[in-house]
Amino acid sequence: MTNITMIRAAAERLKGHVRRTPLLSSPFLDEIAGRRVFIKPECLQHTGSFKYRGGRSAVSALDPEVRARGVIAFSSGNHAQGVALAARELGAPAVIIMPADAPQMKIANTRALGAEVVLYDRAGGESREAVGEKLTAERGLTMIKPYDEPQVIAGQGTTGLEIAEDANALGITQADMLVCCGGGGLTSGIALALEADAPGLRVRPCEPIGFDDVTRSLASGHIETNNRQSGNICDAILTPAPGQITFPILKRLCGPGLTVSEDECLHAMTLAWSRLKVVAEPGGAAALAAALFRKDQIEGDTVIATISGGNVDAEIYQTALSRYGT
Amino acid sequence: MTNITMIRAAAERLKGHVRRTPLLSSPFLDEIAGRRVFIKPECLQHTGSFKYRGGRSAVSALDPEVRARGVIAFSSGNHAQGVALAARELGAPAVIIMPADAPQMKIANTRALGAEVVLYDRAGGESREAVGEKLTAERGLTMIKPYDEPQVIAGQGTTGLEIAEDANALGITQADMLVCCGGGGLTSGIALALEADAPGLRVRPCEPIGFDDVTRSLASGHIETNNRQSGNICDAILTPAPGQITFPILKRLCGPGLTVSEDECLHAMTLAWSRLKVVAEPGGAAALAAALFRKDQIEGDTVIATISGGNVDAEIYQTALSRYGT
Repeated sequence: MTNITMIRAAAERLKGHVRRTPLLSSPFLDEIAGRRVFIKPECLQHTGSFKYRGGRSAVSALDPEVRARGVIAFSSGNHAQGVALAARELGAPAVIIMPADAPQMKIANTRALGAEVVLYDRAGGESREAVGEKLTAERGLTMIKPYDEPQVIAGQGTTGLEIAEDANALGITQADMLVCCGGGGLTSGIALALEADAPGLRVRPCEPIGFDDVTRSLASGHIETNNRQSGNICDAILTPAPGQITFPILKRLCGPGLTVSEDECLHAMTLAWSRLKVVAEPGGAAALAAALFRKDQIEGDTVIATISGGNVDAEIYQTALSRYGT
Repeated sequence: MTNITMIRAAAERLKGHVRRTPLLSSPFLDEIAGRRVFIKPECLQHTGSFKYRGGRSAVSALDPEVRARGVIAFSSGNHAQGVALAARELGAPAVIIMPADAPQMKIANTRALGAEVVLYDRAGGESREAVGEKLTAERGLTMIKPYDEPQVIAGQGTTGLEIAEDANALGITQADMLVCCGGGGLTSGIALALEADAPGLRVRPCEPIGFDDVTRSLASGHIETNNRQSGNICDAILTPAPGQITFPILKRLCGPGLTVSEDECLHAMTLAWSRLKVVAEPGGAAALAAALFRKDQIEGDTVIATISGGNVDAEIYQTALSRYGT
């Protein structure tokens, strides 16, 4: 189980490698939200999302001989790129298992970061687990899970150490801390870091309407699942259920959850573009959307929100700008 | 005349107020450029451009009683917003003179930052100078010029102090430093800062093809002018000629200049979007365009480029993405 000692150790390993992202703000966003809004733009992180932190934390925590045999991950998105870059930097071979019908750009990006991409036939019913297990056994690879892995959570938690440091410097002692939430790796990591370094900040997961497994799990007290895992533009945060490791942390420290619509995410992406000059992907804009458009569900005079990633297709981005850009 | 002592003094006045922007990079940009590329993203600065630095430097340098009477600036763009925000923060009234046919969004933004916007009829031949002089005389306002003003140059120079600090930390002792250049305020300020703190970095102004007054002035050794001041999407860096104060600095420390096309700026904007997750405006992408697409005119294994601003219309941004986004 991840704890603050592991997060601080991860921060030491990541020092000089992760980008130390700032807290951004804009008077225009404050006005919309009716309170002060601060943004943690992890879209500016290497590979365009916070996932590099967890990938680097996990790969760097391996014993050197284990690491030298290589790592493997299942992902068609941000986790793939985070693990690929971290592995390349640390001299570890990386195998990324992706569906053959994943966007060519994502496959190309992951390959360009030095990973071996192994495709499986999702439509034809091929099991990615079977593909992964065969490779793992043959080559002695170590699986890096996207969120239910203590060292990944520790890496994501370094985001929270930075938020706490900046919030304390700004004199912010009470605030709702909104986090874009899929499986809960980032959310639980930030929650552990803030528990130690900024305990007045309340962590609240933000999810797409209809994919609110974490929000419902926090309400019921046990793990709830989503009916679907696709059919929403917030692809980065569509997960089946909170993790076995993340959920106990979420339950102890976080909530209640907030949910937002696809249109609200597109609107928030456009406001991040016009007011902060940073690029958010739909799922990465969920917390900002909640900060701006769920003001009655937020307490206090200050809110902090992550923009957790910026890896978005040009077509979706143009849709956002054409709908909400002025 | 601005000197390094004034720049360091400006940095002290700006401390805790300007956003300390990082140096960004991406292996994908390195590959295109054929060398290491570092980006100074001043689009992330307050008001979306470096102009806030110069505005805050100039307004904060005024005697308190002079400042209390207020400041005035001519601008329909980034300088207007920089001066407006700085004045509001420092308790000074601000009057911004803008053409009546300026984009509504720019007028609205400047007003939202607390400035009094006075419109003049550009098409009808009304002189903005006459409008400005009348107001200045009536109210005892102080004019804040956009670039030919020592304390504005000192403020822009703080960008250079940060670049020098980060370049030294990265061990970069030799590099071409490409700067988006209009009247030369940012370029001359950065050049003075680097002369003191990172003398191996050579500052080179980047301009749109057809609006290369600074490039030609550096080649001929005296101030050359542009035939036109409009008709190019890089509106932020279209100026009639280098300034009387900036040019001697540029001549002593900078060159040769580089020029880029509108399409190259749109392409660079799209790469800033996909690879760095920051929003660049066309003129703010000129230096990145030169870094990526003028590789034969750049020396050494490292290049640093400013993204000087990100205030761009949604329509132009969509054009860039539809043309170059994949």
